[in-house]
Amino acid sequence: MIDGKTELIAHLGWPTHAFKAPMIYNPYFEAVGVNAVVVPMGCPPESFPQVLLGVFALQNVRGALITMPHKVSVVELLDEVTPTVKVAGSCNAVKRLPDGRLAGDMFDGEGFVRGVERKGLRLQGASALVVGSGGVGSAIAASLAAAGAATLALVDVNEASAEALAQRLRREYPALAVRTGSRDPAAFDLVVNATPLGMQAGDPLPVDVARIDPRSFVGEVVMKNEITPFLAAAQARGCRVQVGTDMLFEMIPAYLEFFGFPPATPETLRSHARIAY
Amino acid sequence: MIDGKTELIAHLGWPTHAFKAPMIYNPYFEAVGVNAVVVPMGCPPESFPQVLLGVFALQNVRGALITMPHKVSVVELLDEVTPTVKVAGSCNAVKRLPDGRLAGDMFDGEGFVRGVERKGLRLQGASALVVGSGGVGSAIAASLAAAGAATLALVDVNEASAEALAQRLRREYPALAVRTGSRDPAAFDLVVNATPLGMQAGDPLPVDVARIDPRSFVGEVVMKNEITPFLAAAQARGCRVQVGTDMLFEMIPAYLEFFGFPPATPETLRSHARIAY
Repeated sequence: MIDGKTELIAHLGWPTHAFKAPMIYNPYFEAVGVNAVVVPMGCPPESFPQVLLGVFALQNVRGALITMPHKVSVVELLDEVTPTVKVAGSCNAVKRLPDGRLAGDMFDGEGFVRGVERKGLRLQGASALVVGSGGVGSAIAASLAAAGAATLALVDVNEASAEALAQRLRREYPALAVRTGSRDPAAFDLVVNATPLGMQAGDPLPVDVARIDPRSFVGEVVMKNEITPFLAAAQARGCRVQVGTDMLFEMIPAYLEFFGFPPATPETLRSHARIAY
Repeated sequence: MIDGKTELIAHLGWPTHAFKAPMIYNPYFEAVGVNAVVVPMGCPPESFPQVLLGVFALQNVRGALITMPHKVSVVELLDEVTPTVKVAGSCNAVKRLPDGRLAGDMFDGEGFVRGVERKGLRLQGASALVVGSGGVGSAIAASLAAAGAATLALVDVNEASAEALAQRLRREYPALAVRTGSRDPAAFDLVVNATPLGMQAGDPLPVDVARIDPRSFVGEVVMKNEITPFLAAAQARGCRVQVGTDMLFEMIPAYLEFFGFPPATPETLRSHARIAY
């Protein structure tokens, strides 16, 4: 029940019709008695700088969730960003610091990282192949580096995109071994599909699954079906896997911490969410 | 339940703690199945112009409720205002016109007018004494003029304030008879207390009630107790009366019409409201 003491989380994107965050956060806030609400705000690209400043001029705004098409353009409007934002080249969470400056972080990859770590994969010192160097692939690579991965292999149909991501990673993490150009999944601790392959029936698999070590962990970003053909093939080889929606619910505790709310578990959030897949 | 298709009504004021509108509108919207929500937005004065433009850049904003301290300063930021806004010198509702321009109206006095008319007072051609020429008194005088009153008498402890209101009324309504300087309530169809007298125990009555015609209608803006000492005295003389909160709930159907929502009655709104007095 919104009242005069309700704090706002602005959910900035455009269009808003497919937004899911209000139906995840708000039932949770209500259930645990946090007087806050995620408010969808449909902001066309040309108005975004003005809207962002207006939103953070409001005294009862706790923070903002940033989504398409603003994840990249928001970065240059912020006063302080994390290495994860710098590597990903995008930002999906903004808050006001006590001194009034705006700080941004990026949790798209953090959800993936938290998920695989909770499932038992130790990322400190690990090696990973990330297939796809677009928005989500860049975010996952950035979070894997932040989590202490030792080796990252990057590949994308657009070679320049993978190369640019590699350069941003080397700049922020000089000790990290970064390779590009091969999609051979052999001998990695973690293999990630961060491409849209698997959304359409008949899509080829992102890598040659027969070359994945059965001890590898395999993760997926496609949320259309929980078990995509790629995950099914990996499971058949004996690999442990992480589905796309795990990333979503693992991400939200990270957001809540960033905004300064009490800690929450992905299970609690998932149990209160009013969304269907 | 807020989702990606929810439309917003921005409730702009500062501080927000005492806001009541979310607890009036939102339970009503939920009960009748309108996917809209009033969102409190705490906006310090210096940020107001920026915030207003930011809010109306959002595609899912249906309109804004404007409250203290922005009711006066908003006027000069609008492209189009009603005569009621011009006379009141303030505005409490803003919407975007189809061509993108911002239009404002003022409903503080409209609630009063609708209330007394629904109680049987015909304002077309009527005479009224409005005691108090501050924000709410100016708004009530403006709405009485818009409703067709023929004679308005204005009085305020600050004579210049009453005189300025009289001038604004004469400019917008050349046919209206406007007098200032006397608080004698004899021979008016309507007598209105639009001062804070009645909020504190021991306050003097705003006019000499013994001089009010028993056939007069007497109205009040003070909401602290439904029946203020002034209304009690008027009732004892046989006058019909209107309490302060009637103004509030009569105002809301006017707002809803302004924003283009389906019509509502004050009774329905009051029955769903989750506020206490």
